Amino acid sequence: MDASPAARPSDAPLVRRLRGESVDAPPSVWFMRQAGRSLPEYRAVREGTSMLESCLMPALASEITLQPVRRHGVDAGIFFSDIVVPAKLAGLEVEIVPGRGPVFASPIRTRADIDALPPLGDATEEALAPIREAVGLTVAELGATPLIGFCGAPFTVASYMVEGGPSRDHLRTRALMREDPEAWDRLASWVAELSGRFLRAQVLAGASAVQLFDSWVGSLSAEVYTRHVQRHSAAVLSAVSDLDVPRIHFGVGASHLLREMHAAGATTMGVDHRMPLDEAIRILGGDVPVQGNIDPAVLFTGEDARYAEARAVLAAGASAPEHVVNLGHGVPPETDPAVLTDLVAFLHAQSA
Amino acid sequence: MDASPAARPSDAPLVRRLRGESVDAPPSVWFMRQAGRSLPEYRAVREGTSMLESCLMPALASEITLQPVRRHGVDAGIFFSDIVVPAKLAGLEVEIVPGRGPVFASPIRTRADIDALPPLGDATEEALAPIREAVGLTVAELGATPLIGFCGAPFTVASYMVEGGPSRDHLRTRALMREDPEAWDRLASWVAELSGRFLRAQVLAGASAVQLFDSWVGSLSAEVYTRHVQRHSAAVLSAVSDLDVPRIHFGVGASHLLREMHAAGATTMGVDHRMPLDEAIRILGGDVPVQGNIDPAVLFTGEDARYAEARAVLAAGASAPEHVVNLGHGVPPETDPAVLTDLVAFLHAQSA
Repeated sequence: MDASPAARPSDAPLVRRLRGESVDAPPSVWFMRQAGRSLPEYRAVREGTSMLESCLMPALASEITLQPVRRHGVDAGIFFSDIVVPAKLAGLEVEIVPGRGPVFASPIRTRADIDALPPLGDATEEALAPIREAVGLTVAELGATPLIGFCGAPFTVASYMVEGGPSRDHLRTRALMREDPEAWDRLASWVAELSGRFLRAQVLAGASAVQLFDSWVGSLSAEVYTRHVQRHSAAVLSAVSDLDVPRIHFGVGASHLLREMHAAGATTMGVDHRMPLDEAIRILGGDVPVQGNIDPAVLFTGEDARYAEARAVLAAGASAPEHVVNLGHGVPPETDPAVLTDLVAFLHAQSA
Repeated sequence: MDASPAARPSDAPLVRRLRGESVDAPPSVWFMRQAGRSLPEYRAVREGTSMLESCLMPALASEITLQPVRRHGVDAGIFFSDIVVPAKLAGLEVEIVPGRGPVFASPIRTRADIDALPPLGDATEEALAPIREAVGLTVAELGATPLIGFCGAPFTVASYMVEGGPSRDHLRTRALMREDPEAWDRLASWVAELSGRFLRAQVLAGASAVQLFDSWVGSLSAEVYTRHVQRHSAAVLSAVSDLDVPRIHFGVGASHLLREMHAAGATTMGVDHRMPLDEAIRILGGDVPVQGNIDPAVLFTGEDARYAEARAVLAAGASAPEHVVNLGHGVPPETDPAVLTDLVAFLHAQSA
């Protein structure tokens, strides 16, 4: 079922832009969390199936990935998954509790907990079979439209494991790094190796680019990030660095970490709506392609405010080597899908 | 019951440092959210009384404000209140739902909702009587220890009013500013006037400094902040600018807004744990006193990691005109109070 890497549409304008190549084509756009709750066809196919089950059913995960590409005409699919899918595949007991988020049955807080994490290796590769199959199905269906592989970053994933579920300030996780850096390193290394395998499987099965998504990294200072987190994110990205795919890295509320996150081995930086793209481009030294950063708030305004924001983002992105349009955060579940479809059409009607 | 402004201990080292005056004394320290759930004596006196009720019972609010000063020996009290207390006093129906946060019975989302907000004036001043009384009682009891007045900033307060309760991304509020800036302005102006009266009442009753606390402002870009929010925060701060008290301003995850928030009329900037103090001091131009920013995560480590962080914060703060020690965020409810007491003693044993 695996697509050979050669089958990847690596010449699509979106992929070329992620690589920083200049392209004479209308703006390229996809939306973080475009696959999911905002779409009625998603809610329909998910009915009766839990979130994590649906991530592990290849035909279903593929269908969900394809839905927003069909509906909105976005320039890439993003592989439908969840940041805790790798942990589930490795054998940890975790579920996504509706209205709450990922919850681990046994939080990982002590050295003994960390020592008891399942070993990674051949069994992991076998467990990744449904991922490879889902990606293969999706890529075959997408044709010339590229698929972006998806993975949660080690700090965010580990913080769910340590806290046991969503938390506002990730205090236990951040205390662990300071109190027992060696134990933290072992935990984060485990997550990073697992995540690297998860991401590599997606690329080998046909993904044309990857995005490493760090929801909570913005809660760290640059010093703490550099000392305790950066090398683990770098390990994930390096797992696909020989495969010639652009590596997008995105953190929420992490404008103070742009340089450090890029230095973890990203080729392309996702920027959230808090920082203007031109400022991000400048901070990154002017030679890094960027992705972003339409404020999701304009999905809830009229056309005028929305188009004004889209135009401003295109203008601010023009100083980058290249720019792929996205939101500054994931699609909110309550978004009217017609607004997204219209926004894609608006963007495609602009000159690059 | 009102203390005359002359009764304010404006020569306390903490107050002088907030003003940027050099003081030969051990480091000054207080903790955001020091009064509250981390203290067993707080849980005891609150039993059977709702959060907002307790804020409006002068003897109780005063007792709660005093508890951490007695227990920890911190160098200031912070007036026990909640960001929605002014709205409650103005007549809006709001309560703090345990485990969730402030919830407004009728969200304010339309022009009609905004037009229907209660008028502010003499009735507001009368409604503030329990606040003045609580501050007066507290100041009388505190003696030479200064009291810091507390107020939520307009963006945060208005976002609770618009969303109806806590929200992750404040999308409706941020959409309102873009879609109907004039309506937003009227709403935020109402909140700012109310907040200014609330803060001024505290100072006139004896508070020696004020802190304007903006929980959610970090979700805004500097451009959006400057265009839609800054002048409303400025209106609150200007309500006490003739009273010769230091005006501390603090936002969570708002290191990208430090300069803009300072320009709203703060004399002293609170810095959260995401940005090193020396960097914040540099961004602010080197002449602004700062407050902060021990990472609350070290409240959950052993002494070594905690003291190392405290020493690092003292060292990084040394480049400011002056520095008042605080946490980089409020005291987490699950904090062991003995850890805070010990941290105060540790800080007081250091040289300034």
